[in-house]
Amino acid sequence: MKFVRFEQNGKVNYGIVTNDVVSEISNSPIGQQYSETGEKYNLSEVKILAPVPQPGKMLCLALNYGSHLLGADKPSRPEPFYKNNNAIIGPGDPIKLPEDAGLVVCESELVVIIGQKAQSVSEEDALDYVFGYTAGNDVSAREWQAGPKADKQWWRAKSSDTFGPTGPFIVTDLDPQNLSIKAWVNGVEGQNCHSSEMIFTAAQAVSFISKYVTLNPGDMIWTGTSGTTPPINAGGDVSIEVEGIGKLTNPVINA
Amino acid sequence: MKFVRFEQNGKVNYGIVTNDVVSEISNSPIGQQYSETGEKYNLSEVKILAPVPQPGKMLCLALNYGSHLLGADKPSRPEPFYKNNNAIIGPGDPIKLPEDAGLVVCESELVVIIGQKAQSVSEEDALDYVFGYTAGNDVSAREWQAGPKADKQWWRAKSSDTFGPTGPFIVTDLDPQNLSIKAWVNGVEGQNCHSSEMIFTAAQAVSFISKYVTLNPGDMIWTGTSGTTPPINAGGDVSIEVEGIGKLTNPVINA
Repeated sequence: MKFVRFEQNGKVNYGIVTNDVVSEISNSPIGQQYSETGEKYNLSEVKILAPVPQPGKMLCLALNYGSHLLGADKPSRPEPFYKNNNAIIGPGDPIKLPEDAGLVVCESELVVIIGQKAQSVSEEDALDYVFGYTAGNDVSAREWQAGPKADKQWWRAKSSDTFGPTGPFIVTDLDPQNLSIKAWVNGVEGQNCHSSEMIFTAAQAVSFISKYVTLNPGDMIWTGTSGTTPPINAGGDVSIEVEGIGKLTNPVINA
Repeated sequence: MKFVRFEQNGKVNYGIVTNDVVSEISNSPIGQQYSETGEKYNLSEVKILAPVPQPGKMLCLALNYGSHLLGADKPSRPEPFYKNNNAIIGPGDPIKLPEDAGLVVCESELVVIIGQKAQSVSEEDALDYVFGYTAGNDVSAREWQAGPKADKQWWRAKSSDTFGPTGPFIVTDLDPQNLSIKAWVNGVEGQNCHSSEMIFTAAQAVSFISKYVTLNPGDMIWTGTSGTTPPINAGGDVSIEVEGIGKLTNPVINA
């Protein structure tokens, strides 16, 4: 199933998307029962919003593609860092570059959305705790992340306001290890990988994290990025596409 | 004013504390209007809970006391890291040590609770955006933080489940730079400092963070710890006391 969170006539709801028609539902479907309200809209007449406006927490995997190790050792376990919900924006919302951020890049990622409380779950069972998947752009300020200007931990580098575009849809019936993931900056392809290349699978990440950090409905696991990551600049735009989910495009402006 | 979040007869409410009497109020006072319900309880007959059960985000200052630099350079700017709300527990709740955590220590801290949305606020205005203060124990697993077993970023080290005791009260009319802060492990004093020793004041931290990360009501800024930090062990307990706020005590058990 494909879900969308959307605004129409000033009201925000979730809906089920079928053949470009949105069937409004009673509430968020993430970890909850819902029903169709009977209202239907054409997808083209609604504003698509971030699928989860305020995730309780987001853990993102560093170094989860061999092509993105760039000299670092291959990790022996998932290596999460936190991204915070002030970063969340939806499709079409501007990424705002802080004036002192220096080089800012995009990172195209498959994002896992947790559907039910997960505490010390096994790898075999982990995907049963997942509600669905969306696309994410783990916008990163590289000078705050490494090098002489780096912060001690990645707080601004990964979670400045607007550094977390997500969307456009939540899709529930995907194989997270069998998806093409791409990024374009100003229409030029900048990343192109396949989720089968992940070092740790989505299931392994959910299982490992849940031993230490209890996951709740709406929490997100960002599964890492591949290869080299293209710079983004004010006045341009950036798109992330995950196979089966769709394309997430955001303009880039100065904050 | 002194506020408490508490449970009584299975119901959870906030209240105002005056001379050990709790006057129940209609809702959380953090960034909201409230009124007294007329119900009153003796403080001794209620269960005191974490003052904010699910902060939207928590930023904690690394290296914010000269006595805690331990060879590191004095920072030129506040150095936040994130702690996540799965770590939050209240007074009396057990700190649960993960079996593979190795050395776990306590860190006694003054915690700032944001009262209204703060975006690029000045140092001069910063405390106007603060609702009040509580005590916090920034429980830390040192082997996951530094050394050969360290994680790339501090995710388990600082935010394993139960690693964030907070409480017992929120006090609104304190000078955050004029407070004694102490820790005891199994009744033995292990930390003793004064908040005037902070390298960056609470106001400086709120102002700096708010340039990049918008702060919202209930968000917390943990202002750092001092000196060396005593180990905690299963079967013992740990207390944090901040002058004017009270004592936060938690037993320690194996997870």
